[in-house]
Amino acid sequence: MSEWSFENWYPSRFGADDQIGAFNLITPESILKAVRLVRTGVIYDLSFVIDQDIPIPGFHGSPFTNTQYTLENGVEWHNKRMGEMKNGYSAQNLRLSISDHTGTHIDQFNHIGELQPDGDYLLYNGIRNKEVVSTFGTSRLGLETMPPMIARGILIDVAGFKGVDMLPMGYAIQPDELDAALAAQGTTVEEGDVVLVHTGWGKHWLDPDTMMQGEPGLGKACGPWAVEKNIICWGVDQFATDPIPYENPGEALPMHISMLVKAGIRLMENVNMQEIVDRRIYEFLIVAAPLKIKGATGSPLRLLAIT
Amino acid sequence: MSEWSFENWYPSRFGADDQIGAFNLITPESILKAVRLVRTGVIYDLSFVIDQDIPIPGFHGSPFTNTQYTLENGVEWHNKRMGEMKNGYSAQNLRLSISDHTGTHIDQFNHIGELQPDGDYLLYNGIRNKEVVSTFGTSRLGLETMPPMIARGILIDVAGFKGVDMLPMGYAIQPDELDAALAAQGTTVEEGDVVLVHTGWGKHWLDPDTMMQGEPGLGKACGPWAVEKNIICWGVDQFATDPIPYENPGEALPMHISMLVKAGIRLMENVNMQEIVDRRIYEFLIVAAPLKIKGATGSPLRLLAIT
Amino acid sequence: MSEWSFENWYPSRFGADDQIGAFNLITPESILKAVRLVRTGVIYDLSFVIDQDIPIPGFHGSPFTNTQYTLENGVEWHNKRMGEMKNGYSAQNLRLSISDHTGTHIDQFNHIGELQPDGDYLLYNGIRNKEVVSTFGTSRLGLETMPPMIARGILIDVAGFKGVDMLPMGYAIQPDELDAALAAQGTTVEEGDVVLVHTGWGKHWLDPDTMMQGEPGLGKACGPWAVEKNIICWGVDQFATDPIPYENPGEALPMHISMLVKAGIRLMENVNMQEIVDRRIYEFLIVAAPLKIKGATGSPLRLLAIT
Amino acid sequence: MSEWSFENWYPSRFGADDQIGAFNLITPESILKAVRLVRTGVIYDLSFVIDQDIPIPGFHGSPFTNTQYTLENGVEWHNKRMGEMKNGYSAQNLRLSISDHTGTHIDQFNHIGELQPDGDYLLYNGIRNKEVVSTFGTSRLGLETMPPMIARGILIDVAGFKGVDMLPMGYAIQPDELDAALAAQGTTVEEGDVVLVHTGWGKHWLDPDTMMQGEPGLGKACGPWAVEKNIICWGVDQFATDPIPYENPGEALPMHISMLVKAGIRLMENVNMQEIVDRRIYEFLIVAAPLKIKGATGSPLRLLAIT
Repeated sequence: MSEWSFENWYPSRFGADDQIGAFNLITPESILKAVRLVRTGVIYDLSFVIDQDIPIPGFHGSPFTNTQYTLENGVEWHNKRMGEMKNGYSAQNLRLSISDHTGTHIDQFNHIGELQPDGDYLLYNGIRNKEVVSTFGTSRLGLETMPPMIARGILIDVAGFKGVDMLPMGYAIQPDELDAALAAQGTTVEEGDVVLVHTGWGKHWLDPDTMMQGEPGLGKACGPWAVEKNIICWGVDQFATDPIPYENPGEALPMHISMLVKAGIRLMENVNMQEIVDRRIYEFLIVAAPLKIKGATGSPLRLLAIT
Repeated sequence: MSEWSFENWYPSRFGADDQIGAFNLITPESILKAVRLVRTGVIYDLSFVIDQDIPIPGFHGSPFTNTQYTLENGVEWHNKRMGEMKNGYSAQNLRLSISDHTGTHIDQFNHIGELQPDGDYLLYNGIRNKEVVSTFGTSRLGLETMPPMIARGILIDVAGFKGVDMLPMGYAIQPDELDAALAAQGTTVEEGDVVLVHTGWGKHWLDPDTMMQGEPGLGKACGPWAVEKNIICWGVDQFATDPIPYENPGEALPMHISMLVKAGIRLMENVNMQEIVDRRIYEFLIVAAPLKIKGATGSPLRLLAIT
Repeated sequence: MSEWSFENWYPSRFGADDQIGAFNLITPESILKAVRLVRTGVIYDLSFVIDQDIPIPGFHGSPFTNTQYTLENGVEWHNKRMGEMKNGYSAQNLRLSISDHTGTHIDQFNHIGELQPDGDYLLYNGIRNKEVVSTFGTSRLGLETMPPMIARGILIDVAGFKGVDMLPMGYAIQPDELDAALAAQGTTVEEGDVVLVHTGWGKHWLDPDTMMQGEPGLGKACGPWAVEKNIICWGVDQFATDPIPYENPGEALPMHISMLVKAGIRLMENVNMQEIVDRRIYEFLIVAAPLKIKGATGSPLRLLAIT
Repeated sequence: MSEWSFENWYPSRFGADDQIGAFNLITPESILKAVRLVRTGVIYDLSFVIDQDIPIPGFHGSPFTNTQYTLENGVEWHNKRMGEMKNGYSAQNLRLSISDHTGTHIDQFNHIGELQPDGDYLLYNGIRNKEVVSTFGTSRLGLETMPPMIARGILIDVAGFKGVDMLPMGYAIQPDELDAALAAQGTTVEEGDVVLVHTGWGKHWLDPDTMMQGEPGLGKACGPWAVEKNIICWGVDQFATDPIPYENPGEALPMHISMLVKAGIRLMENVNMQEIVDRRIYEFLIVAAPLKIKGATGSPLRLLAIT
């Protein structure tokens, strides 16, 4: 493993059989350390509300919800199994039709593969995409394998550091900007951290057309920085981590590829950072509890920062 | 509020405008107290994996998942917006079609209404069902209003206390059994707690037909007990909290009605308690982060106990 | 039945137990007569292509389609059941998430009920809505009860008769305009006919925002005209038969109510009439084969006119 | 085209640009001829009702339907656009989540590709699968390109000819049996015909587990027979045309490959033939009106035989 590099990326940094990636750094010790950050007991909700009008790429499709009035069916079911119901109640449920990458969400490793010279696509740890993908998700690396994320979270307010409301579309944040913003904030990034980067682009959340036209994002050089710092997850307040248009013309999604496929570092997108930015809250316990849906490639999140 | 009772249940115990219910007892102080329970840094996952074969009532419908190969579309999208992509990647997502009460989940107040003498159904705090329910969920009390749940969690192993693998179908647990099991465990329930009750029925999880044929559950008298103890949420390892067949013939879902509609106390179902039961872990920090889906009536959960 | 009127509308014109409505007029004799209209063997397709961008009311939701790559699963299934597959094939399917009123479609009687003074809603033939509607559609009057429609079809080109490309939004077509346009065309409407009315509004099909902002439609007086002529079905090239804004302020969907609920006459919407209008084809065999989906309230159609 | 063979199968029998296949044989002349078969005006419905319990392969998923109560939304929409609604109506719709191969259905050419020595899969007319398949179906050969099918239909009652209720699972029908059954019936197959083959297996329709365990079907030699007779479509009363287990071990779906990929002859499955079998109706006008869903690979059908 000492020889791991972005060029020689599998077996993974965490062993040839690993499916967990940098979440291996979540240990009882790291959890204890992160939990000790809680000193006020205040929860900041880093999630946007999910409805049918939220920004989402067309190929995912908008969430569609549909009320089920289960009362009627319930009555029939009751009466068949338990004799006539004498009291009365109404019941409703929602049937949801949503992408597993809806709203504030986390990307799992089976989401992205990299094209190889032989024409194959490889996922994290060198797993061949076509060997694991099927109609109902993937047989390995599925969402059911992702541990919950309880860790120290760090906000880097790059937009604030640069004195702007939001970085411009296509802007590629560089490692030296991360370091400078951290220094200005008086915070440091440590091994095992979750790093949230504030671009300001999330202010477009209620204007999907503007939000989805492109975005500032993490430049490709942030990949090696993440490995050097040994962080476990990124979070951004835009929809695809990488800047769009791309930093290097023709090079699609380099951070998706270097982080998810190679370094085993996850990505969270559409993180709602406005409140912690406004309050200058840079360090916190961060909690993400991805759903355990078999074979899924990501999870909508109720993402929490606790101080 | 001093006059609140199960007969005189609205305005609610938490005021006439309240939509939060007993989660009002989640405060910075209660959170700090709960977080201090973390002493080992070990996370226990209280959630079952969600796939198409899990137990679920027929009127909810099984989860259906469908892989989306977004690569192709992505390529077209890239090329249109950013010029020809020169590197290559594969991408997949899952489109999910699921009930908001799938798998391990929490019930929100808009899930159940009680029939009134005038023929109307009332939800929590006396909200008229027909005034808020629409095609896409409810305009009040929707899942987007449910705060995250960070609290002290208590397991009551009733099956263990009674020396059985699982309680029989239809068995209605009584408050004195809760008290006796708590005493035997050496644990107490405090204001603001989340109370998990182990019936053993969850052992049927992989055998949906058996699991769904009926269940032991919380007897009706557990409702007043919950209010007296001032707990904020129940969790059970079966699918509907109430015993089936019903404790009192003809009286459908009394705990759903007394807890969700009247007392503002939520219910979690299909909680996977096996590991904490086996390890006799009775007290923990419990974390539930319900999705913020507008108008939804419940949320699948990745439910966590941390010690 | 001699006493049937729009005020005294149930039992229906076709008996107290009828679920078929005016399609009772489709008989072997009427079919033979309609089939004899075929003299050239040319089929005109009256259907629009269904994709995710078509005009549709927000509460129905756009069609969402998702390719299923069944190959992988198929291979596993093969190998499990029949031994190793030695040849190779790819397979794909589409999972469809659509409203039963998508695109060119027909409305079934269970789609609409009329409010009664006692607060109940009644469907065709006086069936109480709440007695038949459940989570999965209706137990009576569902799409599975709708016979196929093989009949004489008549086009009335009202827009053409009035010398305009399209009638203005909100325009309510009156019976005397139908009669005058028929006379100008040299066609007559006979018992058992399907009557297509061309408003020109379908030219907006590729511009959903414009199409859905309102529409010209059939004025309320066309209801009695339809009963007097004894037609079995209307078709329009707009999305809701009735004009929007409504002919009489505050009176919603009078044609939906008079036709579907009372007279047992069905409605087809989003009928693509451009080609038969351009070719002045006013009389034809019309063929509609609604899907037999249990409990559904309408069916997308591949609607055909054959000359 | 004279050199076309199953070994040398593209360009197709209908030209290098063709997407229509044998439906090219549907012409005004053939339609006129077919329509002249209607002498009694009686319609036989060859479709099964679609509900959540019908037989369907697991990878397609059962149909799921969900009532939408559009009333509430409609009211809001009305009031916003047109002022307060003063009369009242209820409205319901169904949201459908179904496979495009649900129930009685027809397969389109984009459904199946054949593995080539170079590792590629080719669809009808040599179209490369990977060049046309995307998230939302295929860019060529989609259901929107399938013409309606109005043709002469012929029933071959093979089960009846062999004096059995149903052929056994795995039974592969041979061309000489088709010929002999035709002779016994006194019917002949002509160019442009749709040929329905009765195996009796459809009697299992209400018992999905039995129906889906395997099936009798068309032997591989029926492929050349179909080309020689110049038929345009097959229909069977089982779910996958080919026998299961396969006629030749290891050779999966040879009729799917030879018919859809090579000969341009479509397949209909789950055709409900019981009534025409019982009445010994062997010749009829057959009508199939596939939905025009962009990119889809097949269509549920309301299939009609008219005499």
